[in-house]
Amino acid sequence: MSAVSKIYYGAVINPETLTSYQVLPRCLLAVAASGEIAWLVEDVEDSLVQDTLAQKGCTDADVEIFALKHGEFIMPGFVDTHTHAPQVPNIGSGQQYELLDWLQNVTFPMEAKFSDLEFARATYKSVVRRIIDYGTTTCCYYGTLHGEATKVLANTVNELGQRAFVGKCNMNRNSPDYYVEPSPEASIDATLDLIKHIRSLAPSTSSPPLVQPILTPRFAISCTDELMEKLQKVAAADPSLAIQTHISENRSEIEFTLELFPSSKSYAGVYDRYGLLRDNTILAHAVHLSDEEKELVKTRDSGISHCPTSNFNLSSGVAPVGDLLDRGIKVGLGTDVSGGFSPSILTAIQHASIASKVIALQSATPLQQGSKFAGQALPIATLLYLATLGGAQVCCIEKQIGSFAVGKTFDALVVNVRSDSNGPPGLWGTAQSMPVDDTSEGRRKELDGFLERFMFCGDDRNISRVYVQGRWIGGTSFRH
Amino acid sequence: MSAVSKIYYGAVINPETLTSYQVLPRCLLAVAASGEIAWLVEDVEDSLVQDTLAQKGCTDADVEIFALKHGEFIMPGFVDTHTHAPQVPNIGSGQQYELLDWLQNVTFPMEAKFSDLEFARATYKSVVRRIIDYGTTTCCYYGTLHGEATKVLANTVNELGQRAFVGKCNMNRNSPDYYVEPSPEASIDATLDLIKHIRSLAPSTSSPPLVQPILTPRFAISCTDELMEKLQKVAAADPSLAIQTHISENRSEIEFTLELFPSSKSYAGVYDRYGLLRDNTILAHAVHLSDEEKELVKTRDSGISHCPTSNFNLSSGVAPVGDLLDRGIKVGLGTDVSGGFSPSILTAIQHASIASKVIALQSATPLQQGSKFAGQALPIATLLYLATLGGAQVCCIEKQIGSFAVGKTFDALVVNVRSDSNGPPGLWGTAQSMPVDDTSEGRRKELDGFLERFMFCGDDRNISRVYVQGRWIGGTSFRH
Repeated sequence: MSAVSKIYYGAVINPETLTSYQVLPRCLLAVAASGEIAWLVEDVEDSLVQDTLAQKGCTDADVEIFALKHGEFIMPGFVDTHTHAPQVPNIGSGQQYELLDWLQNVTFPMEAKFSDLEFARATYKSVVRRIIDYGTTTCCYYGTLHGEATKVLANTVNELGQRAFVGKCNMNRNSPDYYVEPSPEASIDATLDLIKHIRSLAPSTSSPPLVQPILTPRFAISCTDELMEKLQKVAAADPSLAIQTHISENRSEIEFTLELFPSSKSYAGVYDRYGLLRDNTILAHAVHLSDEEKELVKTRDSGISHCPTSNFNLSSGVAPVGDLLDRGIKVGLGTDVSGGFSPSILTAIQHASIASKVIALQSATPLQQGSKFAGQALPIATLLYLATLGGAQVCCIEKQIGSFAVGKTFDALVVNVRSDSNGPPGLWGTAQSMPVDDTSEGRRKELDGFLERFMFCGDDRNISRVYVQGRWIGGTSFRH
Repeated sequence: MSAVSKIYYGAVINPETLTSYQVLPRCLLAVAASGEIAWLVEDVEDSLVQDTLAQKGCTDADVEIFALKHGEFIMPGFVDTHTHAPQVPNIGSGQQYELLDWLQNVTFPMEAKFSDLEFARATYKSVVRRIIDYGTTTCCYYGTLHGEATKVLANTVNELGQRAFVGKCNMNRNSPDYYVEPSPEASIDATLDLIKHIRSLAPSTSSPPLVQPILTPRFAISCTDELMEKLQKVAAADPSLAIQTHISENRSEIEFTLELFPSSKSYAGVYDRYGLLRDNTILAHAVHLSDEEKELVKTRDSGISHCPTSNFNLSSGVAPVGDLLDRGIKVGLGTDVSGGFSPSILTAIQHASIASKVIALQSATPLQQGSKFAGQALPIATLLYLATLGGAQVCCIEKQIGSFAVGKTFDALVVNVRSDSNGPPGLWGTAQSMPVDDTSEGRRKELDGFLERFMFCGDDRNISRVYVQGRWIGGTSFRH
């Protein structure tokens, strides 16, 4: 690890498990020039900061110290495990449709426009900029079916410094004539070309690449058996290549899938048959999986992207997240724009809470034998986990991001709930004064309250800085 | 009506019925000095504006013309039919509780602080200012149990120019020792004193008072039979006095209510027995009403405040709004802060949509014989209606506000979805250029899209001007 380049001192929220997180009002955290966390000390009194730095050998006057103000805290950046970059221009429209009609009437016409590379350049720049400023430090992007436009998306993400998985959609059937791939071969060629391009973006240093390719069969409906077979070969030859697709979002979609693949017993079975369920597979939605399918997903160690805004908005259903968690399946959150009407993981958190409460209201026997989450409202700790470390697990990068520990990279947000900032925080923001109860316990309780209010009432205005790999790339204080 | 003082020219959205609204891209609308709409012409080409003004006799050079830019539109201000001003400081906290525990642990301790009038002054000023800037032009406020602090709330609303109903809570039992009224007499005395005070705020001119008193028995649980009897007398002596209370929010609350009033068959029956169900009664929640209770509410012509954010957040349930509408019951939206975690009616709209979709997902037979709304997702027109004209009906002021017509008052928002404004609008905002399809139909379609996106993705940053009774009182362009 390289030398310490920056020190942060102040309040830190650090996710630990599905049911716990650390609340650290006076944490001292050092980030190396490589972007990794060099060391952290959980509780350091103001008067002991200089001594602690000296003990750590940080005597270099060049090391910059960023001291957070009261009402600010650092937390891991959000992980959005499922979104469609080219659908952002459609956000907030088409809520009257269910999935298959919505694709035909709203989505495909917009995606087709990305054959125009100038349009793609201008749109993706704006899209990625805004998603960063919403606090998403790692994002799993679906592009369009276009290889070249999706290169533009990957380049944009790389230039703006976000961590991401970027894939182009494989789709050679059940799509409109104006927006469909001409053959399985053409689909695979464009995919391999994109993978090669994205891997060429990796820096030559030892630090891990920010942008990684991801195999993106749109969903089983849009891929012929022949294309699926070819995707299977690509995946088998490249075990480190991540995979993303949709699963079991909507009843009509499920029925249609089973008609198209009569030899498979289930929707999950279709993907499994073609070797597409593995530990680095991200399955979006999973609203209506059978118990058997859940077991299969668990056995393959694939991850689920829970997209509650979209599932409500397109009347798809309510995904049984508690049950998935009880089974030990990896779960993260997804915004699924523009099926979802918000690009903010904060909205996904609020809607994941609502979704779990809707399930709890319907559960006759709220807590079953041996279940920890099923039929229950998800508590703050679980929601926080899904938005950060859970998403990192789904992307198989939980050793690298999602929480703060020595050797993990500093992908982080500076959250500001001070009343002197602009916008909604003022509604409940804190003053400049110290907390009323200035004991350790009082500070922890206050900080915990800030976190909950940020998660339920916050928006992009509360995110003053966004860091990826230690580099400041966005937030309200960032000069674009 | 006084002379025309201001002319607005541009896009206007005008609610009509539960299933329709006018989309008017080039409307010319004149507001009198009294704040009433003097005249409006639905479709006027740019080149004909001066001629139309001349025909209307508006030749006075002093009349100010406000021409909206492309990407701006005027719509009626929002009506929030249920919120608790003193709970705003708690917003976004306590989501782990259900109703009765939440009252004890979160709400009552905060409300008790309003015995301090300095605290009340500072807090209410900030609260009302922000609720105005969220686009709420008419608000039904619960204060605390304190008469004097609630006068402060009424004064603040009056000074800032919002239209509102303001009441102090009647609550003389089942409340903590530190926050309960000492006797029915004391409760009634303070109530009558507050009513008198609020009525003294009315301007001496012929225009209707902005702030009106409202009788506010907190809920049946908090009122003894003796207090209920006294409230009945107050109500009977004053038929124009509005009434607001809670009903059938949560199962434990319902059970407890029926224990306390054993001679009543139902929760609604308790209020009815004391003469508190009438056409100017606003009942918040109505999540679990029986068919019999719904019929009683309909017979009395009382209105329902639907508070979906709160109902999800406190795990209360999902109110059957479609069924209520099918029965012809008046329904508006409420934010119910801080049971709800957002003071914005836009959030209430989004959650009302989600609530209706949750019900639709659960309905085996989506559309029953003769039903128009039950078991269905609420369309944009219905959501818009609930947020404006429906709320006005619930408050019995639908002849005055909620839509635009000659003689109604100009309570309105200027909404801005231009990409050159700050914040989320840029995500999907329009450029300065004219619409791609510059036909009448193209303009209407585009404006309709702006409305839907504002309702689902907008926030306070999109509300540049807020008017009540023709007076500009808030919004992002307003200088506080």
